Amino acid sequence: MDYLKSISSPTLIVKPEIVQANLDRMLAKAERLGLNLIPHFKTPQSVEIGKWAQKRGIDEITVSSIKMAKYLSEQGFKSIHIAFPFNIREIEAFNQLNDLQTMSIQIVSVDTARFLSQNLSIQTSFFIEIDAGYGRTGVRFDDFETIDSILSIAESANKLKFLGFYVHPGHTYYGEIQKIYDETRSTLNLLKTRYYSVYPDMDIRIGDTPGCSLMEDFGPATSIGPGNFMFYDLMQVKIGSCTRDDIAIALAVPVVDVNKQNGKILVHGGGVHLSKDFIQMDDESKCFGEVVLLNDTGWGIPEHTSRVVSVSQEHGVIQASENLLSSVRIGDIIGILPVHSCMTADCMKKYLSTNSEWIDHAEGSVTS
Amino acid sequence: MDYLKSISSPTLIVKPEIVQANLDRMLAKAERLGLNLIPHFKTPQSVEIGKWAQKRGIDEITVSSIKMAKYLSEQGFKSIHIAFPFNIREIEAFNQLNDLQTMSIQIVSVDTARFLSQNLSIQTSFFIEIDAGYGRTGVRFDDFETIDSILSIAESANKLKFLGFYVHPGHTYYGEIQKIYDETRSTLNLLKTRYYSVYPDMDIRIGDTPGCSLMEDFGPATSIGPGNFMFYDLMQVKIGSCTRDDIAIALAVPVVDVNKQNGKILVHGGGVHLSKDFIQMDDESKCFGEVVLLNDTGWGIPEHTSRVVSVSQEHGVIQASENLLSSVRIGDIIGILPVHSCMTADCMKKYLSTNSEWIDHAEGSVTS
Repeated sequence: MDYLKSISSPTLIVKPEIVQANLDRMLAKAERLGLNLIPHFKTPQSVEIGKWAQKRGIDEITVSSIKMAKYLSEQGFKSIHIAFPFNIREIEAFNQLNDLQTMSIQIVSVDTARFLSQNLSIQTSFFIEIDAGYGRTGVRFDDFETIDSILSIAESANKLKFLGFYVHPGHTYYGEIQKIYDETRSTLNLLKTRYYSVYPDMDIRIGDTPGCSLMEDFGPATSIGPGNFMFYDLMQVKIGSCTRDDIAIALAVPVVDVNKQNGKILVHGGGVHLSKDFIQMDDESKCFGEVVLLNDTGWGIPEHTSRVVSVSQEHGVIQASENLLSSVRIGDIIGILPVHSCMTADCMKKYLSTNSEWIDHAEGSVTS
Repeated sequence: MDYLKSISSPTLIVKPEIVQANLDRMLAKAERLGLNLIPHFKTPQSVEIGKWAQKRGIDEITVSSIKMAKYLSEQGFKSIHIAFPFNIREIEAFNQLNDLQTMSIQIVSVDTARFLSQNLSIQTSFFIEIDAGYGRTGVRFDDFETIDSILSIAESANKLKFLGFYVHPGHTYYGEIQKIYDETRSTLNLLKTRYYSVYPDMDIRIGDTPGCSLMEDFGPATSIGPGNFMFYDLMQVKIGSCTRDDIAIALAVPVVDVNKQNGKILVHGGGVHLSKDFIQMDDESKCFGEVVLLNDTGWGIPEHTSRVVSVSQEHGVIQASENLLSSVRIGDIIGILPVHSCMTADCMKKYLSTNSEWIDHAEGSVTS
């Protein structure tokens, strides 16, 4: 129980064997379906976890900012893809990084394509991001004027090399996944039909964890780029992408008060640790996390659920089951499965493994 | 326009003159009402901003964790109060810190009082936190058994010195402030009546920004400990604690796409920058921030409001006014007033002042 003994304040625990099992499972699926897995490291943001991927033959990863790319650069990855519309303000930082680490980028507008064709210092591969239908980002699938203009700019200069189309059906988090995937496949088929003759080697990539976990038919896609699956979380359990046993991280929090009268437990662990993401429950209450019982190898999921029902900056309030309430004491450390693991990891910025080793996260320090 | 020129990625901008005016206004009010202002530094978490407070004669501050106290320790503050139920797991770290910096703490349970009376290395002043009525934390105001037991433990050992009662009516963020303050005053009057004869010098402290901004009658309170008022934010505007002109920070974000068809602007600035706190609008939409137009001295508030209507990890989507839509270009930097400034500051971990100087925040680095 060494790793537990060292905890006195909110600490993010990772179970390496679950991360590795999640990677293995997604890799096996990708292989079975003939897809290339380019995992999205916005979730772990970790050089060490990058090594776990590399050991499994993964030689290319996805990130969502130049800063994150820089953190994970020069670690032996053949290429790093920034799955975010290129931010032209960062051209200088990008060009510097691109000299040291092979990168690929994402374009959603003609203006940005033109800017890049004039300002990239070396030839760079790019995806055109296609709006998956929920309007967050990307070119509309039938906006051929924009797509053709971007391709034409790329062809006329030697700085941009078209890789293919990238689509992130992020609305699978809220909607009917099967229906969304039916539409996404149609969209991608349309694009493939239209552009295949000129770009027979193009890569068609799909990005979301719910789809990559649950779907079997990816249509014309040739690669997948999910990230959350490495850790999973309660939101993914709710969607059906995984079970609670597949969740690889838990926030360890100290109990600072136990209120037997109202059944509530106060922990040091709030919005700056878990993030403020929540699941809206059927009874109108909110769930910011679920209690797990920490042990020397990780944690166990209790039979009766206790939820974090409110968080402020540093406070978390748990509505406790009778079992938990009768056993918990001030000074205990309990675990919280996060609602959104990417956000919780970004808040905490380092991990303590159940093997008692600190694991890095971008912008964090594992020595303090 | 120097400070603006240097921005290429999400950057938190602070206007020092607004922070200082907010401090001056709250200090003047405290002085007028005979209250001592012990500002809560969970909001700025900054040594430099601590100096702005010190210049105004503030020699004591509040924090919400031992980590935060450590960061702000040995900077010339006479005392630092941790306004969070003491976490007994951190006794060792606390004792070390307490040797270097005078501290005060908060107790909500008999068990913790007993533990502290046996484990504190030097005598330490404490408040008993009273539940303001919304059940987050604190002893019920009429739970005299607990209050008396804590006081009795303190009296029987020489390690704990009773300072007074602390109450944080955090439900002023959601409820009727006048009514909540009527109740809070009754609670505090009851406690004063009961304990005044034994503790005539006791300090009675109230903590919330809405109350401290809007109320005039603090009953028997002798000090106030608000924090958010130094920066304010859109939530406080909604409550009525301040106007938009009093908001001291804005997140500068680069525009990466402009969609004239649906009136949306995509920026690099999401949940890891702003936090996921939002205001629920009357039309069921969510507001994660409001656009301001950055200029060389800070920002101006546009006549027509444009809101951040959704955020994911790194993406922010703005529903733009017609004015904004017609003027904005990819590569522009625009400002976002945050919904919850404490959380945004904690996400960003450093500030760029409108005087082009980097300002520190706990756990951040102003050199990278």
